[in-house]
Amino acid sequence: MNQPPAIVFREKVKPSDPEAVRLLVQSSGFFSQVEVEIALELVEEHLMKGEESGYSFLFAELQGQVVAYSCFGPIPGTESNYDLYWIAVLNDFRSMGIGKEVLQRSEQIIAQRGGRQIYVETSSRDQYEPTRSFYKNHGYGEAAQLQDFYAVGDHKVIYVKAL
Amino acid sequence: MNQPPAIVFREKVKPSDPEAVRLLVQSSGFFSQVEVEIALELVEEHLMKGEESGYSFLFAELQGQVVAYSCFGPIPGTESNYDLYWIAVLNDFRSMGIGKEVLQRSEQIIAQRGGRQIYVETSSRDQYEPTRSFYKNHGYGEAAQLQDFYAVGDHKVIYVKAL
Repeated sequence: MNQPPAIVFREKVKPSDPEAVRLLVQSSGFFSQVEVEIALELVEEHLMKGEESGYSFLFAELQGQVVAYSCFGPIPGTESNYDLYWIAVLNDFRSMGIGKEVLQRSEQIIAQRGGRQIYVETSSRDQYEPTRSFYKNHGYGEAAQLQDFYAVGDHKVIYVKAL
Repeated sequence: MNQPPAIVFREKVKPSDPEAVRLLVQSSGFFSQVEVEIALELVEEHLMKGEESGYSFLFAELQGQVVAYSCFGPIPGTESNYDLYWIAVLNDFRSMGIGKEVLQRSEQIIAQRGGRQIYVETSSRDQYEPTRSFYKNHGYGEAAQLQDFYAVGDHKVIYVKAL
């Protein structure tokens, strides 16, 4: 019996990544059209400016297809804190532990760069309960809630993890 | 006896404003070099892209000199919330009520654009006690504190005002 194909990780951003990220982020159903556009812009910003952009990436590929990714970077004006801006897994590849591995490898990269704390933000809506559980299960604690941030009744929940 | 010269307000950004903003923000002594650079970048971003940049401005001029300014814009991904990114008064012109007027006029502009809540962030350090009092005196309530955000012992305090 053959082993399942291994996941390949890469940090280098390729010109085909904006489109890969669009497919990925859209497939999850967790992001609005505005958010999809923002996710794309960050990839394009990196393609133009490299690490200077402030956005770093980790891509997970399976047989050449991008199946998950994260986007993170130092928070300007802070000593050594990082934002995890995005983490998403292609819908057909969820619940296989890929998101966990992308998260942990992203944390390792941030730690190697001297990061002290990682912040992530998500919505309080029911739809995002799996997202919140994902963070809580990986050592992220709730740091704050901003009431009615995204919309009335839709709060922003901020999590933080000390490395 | 002559009246003191009146303050003139304008929203249009001029090519000379990045330099004016640098002087202003540096003079206050409240901002780090990194923050000064960020303040400048937002003005330049507006000069390049206009309102598309997401950054709007209000400048207060006295006899042609920019003595105070604010920078604000809609928070992407939110329904109608605004960030007040910057507000600063040239050091020699502090304690004259100019900051208050810039703040109130900025709030009016945001309200006219349909803004529902305004967020501002500052540091928990003693040095920023006047900043925190300024916001509290103008109807901003503390929404959250992120511990050790800027550095160890230097927390981020988030204020919000409903319009």
